[in-house]
Amino acid sequence: MPRILETIVTTVSPEGRPHIAPMGMQEIDGLVVLMPFRPSQTLDNILASRRAVLNLTGDVRIFAGCVTGRRDWPTVPVDGGEVRLADCLTHVPLELFDCRDDDQRPVLRLRPGAAVIHGPFRGFNRAQAAVIEGAVLVSRLSMLPAEKVDKELEYLQIAIDKTAGDDEHEAWQWLLQAVADHRSGATRRRSA
Amino acid sequence: MPRILETIVTTVSPEGRPHIAPMGMQEIDGLVVLMPFRPSQTLDNILASRRAVLNLTGDVRIFAGCVTGRRDWPTVPVDGGEVRLADCLTHVPLELFDCRDDDQRPVLRLRPGAAVIHGPFRGFNRAQAAVIEGAVLVSRLSMLPAEKVDKELEYLQIAIDKTAGDDEHEAWQWLLQAVADHRSGATRRRSA
Repeated sequence: MPRILETIVTTVSPEGRPHIAPMGMQEIDGLVVLMPFRPSQTLDNILASRRAVLNLTGDVRIFAGCVTGRRDWPTVPVDGGEVRLADCLTHVPLELFDCRDDDQRPVLRLRPGAAVIHGPFRGFNRAQAAVIEGAVLVSRLSMLPAEKVDKELEYLQIAIDKTAGDDEHEAWQWLLQAVADHRSGATRRRSA
Repeated sequence: MPRILETIVTTVSPEGRPHIAPMGMQEIDGLVVLMPFRPSQTLDNILASRRAVLNLTGDVRIFAGCVTGRRDWPTVPVDGGEVRLADCLTHVPLELFDCRDDDQRPVLRLRPGAAVIHGPFRGFNRAQAAVIEGAVLVSRLSMLPAEKVDKELEYLQIAIDKTAGDDEHEAWQWLLQAVADHRSGATRRRSA
C-alpha cells in the first residue's frame, strides 16, 4: 500500500492569487494522487491551470496555521506561473494527468517533475509529528467527540513538552486555541 | 528550547567495526549535543575516535530495527575513517568538541561539518511518526506499565492503518513482536 504523505500543495488561481493548502498525497504508478474534499480552492485552481506544486516542508507551523486561519505564508515564483513555499526543503512541480470527478472527493492524478532540493532533512521530531496529528484533529473538530479530542491532545502534549522547539510550541498553541475557539463557537468553516 | 531530533548516529570502533544507534540530538550554540545512556558503544567509539556521523534517514525500519535487535544496516565509508548509513537523506560528519562525563548520561558536544544531501525530504508521514513513538516505547518496555504500552500502541495503530507504506508496516510488526517477546520473557538488554 502506498504511504500517505502530509504535504503542502500550492496553486495559483486564474486571477493570479496563490493558494496554500495542507493535503495528504499518495504516489501511485509514478503519479501523485490528491483527493481534495469539495469545496476546494486547490481543486478549482488545478482544474483551471492544470498545474500545482508539491511542497515538502519541515515547518509544521504551516500545517497548523492553515487549519487555524493562518494561510498567508511567503511564496516565491517557480516556472509555469506557479509558486512554491519560500520555506520548504523540497518542491516538486506537478502537471495534471487526469481527474476522476466525485461529488465529495475528486481524485486528481498529477505527473511530478524533477524534485528541487532547497535544504537537508533534519531528522524526525516527535513534536512535529504531534503538531501534524493535532492539525488533523483540529480539521475534524466538528466531527469528533470532545472527550476523544481531549484524550488525544493530552497524549500528544507529552511529545510537545519533551521535544518541541520554538516553532512547534507556537504551532501547538494555535491548535489549542482553535479547540478553545471551537468550543466557544468562534470558528467558521474554511475550504481547503 | 532547542528541539530534540531523532537521528541515527554511526560510529566506528578502534577495531574498525561500524556501530549504528538511534539517538536523540539537540543543536545548541552551533554544536550537536548527544546524551547516550551508559553503557553505550556509541559513547566508547566517539571517545576513542573523536568522530561520529549523524544520519538523517526517512527509513523508520532502521529505528525500529535497532531497538528490536536488527542493527545490521548497510553503511558506506565517508572521510576520516567513519561510515554513514547507505540509505540516508542527509549525513553530517561530527567531530568531538568536549565531553562532560556522567555515571548515567555523559553529555557529548560535537562540531558538525557541512551537511551532505543524498535525497529529498518526502514529507511527513503519520505512520513513520507512529513507528518512532513505538520504537521509543519498545526501548522502555522494562520501565513502563503494560496497560500504558497497550493504550499507546492502540492509538498509534490508527496512523499505521491509515497511512503506512510497506516499510512502515514491516517496522511496526517488528515492534509488536518485540512487545510480545518481552511479555513472554524472550528479550535481553541491548546497549545503545
